[in-house]
Amino acid sequence: MRTDYRHWHRVPTRWNDNDVYGHVNNVVHYAFMDTVINTWLIEHAGLDIHSGRSIGLCVESHCSYRASISFPDVLDAGLRIAHLGRSSVRYEVGFHRADSDEVVAEGHFVHVFVDRDTREPAEIPAGLRTAMEGLMIP
Amino acid sequence: MRTDYRHWHRVPTRWNDNDVYGHVNNVVHYAFMDTVINTWLIEHAGLDIHSGRSIGLCVESHCSYRASISFPDVLDAGLRIAHLGRSSVRYEVGFHRADSDEVVAEGHFVHVFVDRDTREPAEIPAGLRTAMEGLMIP
Amino acid sequence: MRTDYRHWHRVPTRWNDNDVYGHVNNVVHYAFMDTVINTWLIEHAGLDIHSGRSIGLCVESHCSYRASISFPDVLDAGLRIAHLGRSSVRYEVGFHRADSDEVVAEGHFVHVFVDRDTREPAEIPAGLRTAMEGLMIP
Amino acid sequence: MRTDYRHWHRVPTRWNDNDVYGHVNNVVHYAFMDTVINTWLIEHAGLDIHSGRSIGLCVESHCSYRASISFPDVLDAGLRIAHLGRSSVRYEVGFHRADSDEVVAEGHFVHVFVDRDTREPAEIPAGLRTAMEGLMIP
Repeated sequence: MRTDYRHWHRVPTRWNDNDVYGHVNNVVHYAFMDTVINTWLIEHAGLDIHSGRSIGLCVESHCSYRASISFPDVLDAGLRIAHLGRSSVRYEVGFHRADSDEVVAEGHFVHVFVDRDTREPAEIPAGLRTAMEGLMIP
Repeated sequence: MRTDYRHWHRVPTRWNDNDVYGHVNNVVHYAFMDTVINTWLIEHAGLDIHSGRSIGLCVESHCSYRASISFPDVLDAGLRIAHLGRSSVRYEVGFHRADSDEVVAEGHFVHVFVDRDTREPAEIPAGLRTAMEGLMIP
Repeated sequence: MRTDYRHWHRVPTRWNDNDVYGHVNNVVHYAFMDTVINTWLIEHAGLDIHSGRSIGLCVESHCSYRASISFPDVLDAGLRIAHLGRSSVRYEVGFHRADSDEVVAEGHFVHVFVDRDTREPAEIPAGLRTAMEGLMIP
Repeated sequence: MRTDYRHWHRVPTRWNDNDVYGHVNNVVHYAFMDTVINTWLIEHAGLDIHSGRSIGLCVESHCSYRASISFPDVLDAGLRIAHLGRSSVRYEVGFHRADSDEVVAEGHFVHVFVDRDTREPAEIPAGLRTAMEGLMIP
């Protein structure tokens, strides 16, 4: 359900997202997840990808595909957070056709926040955490 | 000048467009050109990429870069046609920062239209040509 | 363990596989899986991606990441099949540093074979199935 | 002619390099150029992409296409330097089918070396320059 998500991001496709079978390649949905999550982190949670001390590294991702899409289709990606730990966070993304309730794919993506230099896990900074709490579902 | 272009297409960047130097990789601008041109061909000129008889193959492309951009920047791509031959067409694309007159890169891209099956050059179909004439600059 | 895989494919990285954090982006491992699996299908199992009746569509994929890699690193990808159904097959891929036993990531990828035109699930052709049986693990 | 190049790099294709027309998308050749040039800079000329003071930014690139290729084709990319200035260098790349004299595409790519922090043009360091001289053609 669209109401299951807390944030929306419109995602256009590109010419070379289509593969030889004429639809958007499965790999592209992961590029979308990275884009939706990191845009939200930058614009709504204060992440500084160029010089902030904390960076989020992906340790696990998954996607299941229900329907094919094809360039130049446009998607609406819904974002929510299903689990928020001390240094890790599990996002869930639902890909819908633009302006439609049809779900074309669903994925999850786990970030572990680490120190930029040591790359050791570190507590999610307070500002990020507060923003993340706003994306959580019951 | 923005007035030098005949059609505009807003292009958002993706997380993995950034390379290790922290800005959008030069390769990505070519993916943008392909996307802007083919979206226009599909939506405004009737190109059927899945089953039409005529398809456009790129035989030459070029880009010069004036300023760096970085995800999550958004661009406005201006499109025009500088030369329209019997089977070939030369597009020019000007990449501007969104809502700005700053040009960040300029490229050109040459399509030769061919028969889908034989891949031999073929006259640009009348419907496509008429639409293309509307993008030409004096 | 390297002995857990039935087929090996060496995978070089590309410049733009690195992201802004200086390592290969998580999305790239899915492009590797698609490449390793489809190269094997074409070269060892007779798949014709351009005109064969059966094509394999990805319905689910997953990857977990244990260590970061960075262009120009080279990987050895091990491939095996964990489940072979009537029309679906589950591949597992283990990414190792080249010439090393270090596992950097592990993924799985499920293909459903469909008819090229109707896109309806179809029995995996006999030739493909026989080749796939050779990749199965006990 | 293959003898016109000073360095060779074998480049395999990936599944998603193919586009909807069944051949490797024109954009991919630029990813190959970036990969061939930067691999050479790292392995033969001492470039440190993660912490060196000098980095090479692309200010112009071009490619002309003579023949289509298709995943899983493999290419041999020949590399040479056509012009070496104070802070800029122009590379030329010839893409050949593996183990063949057939040229499928030819491109050029101009790097300006800049200071990593200020991003101002800077003299190409002596070690890089010496290596580059070995790639020059008369």
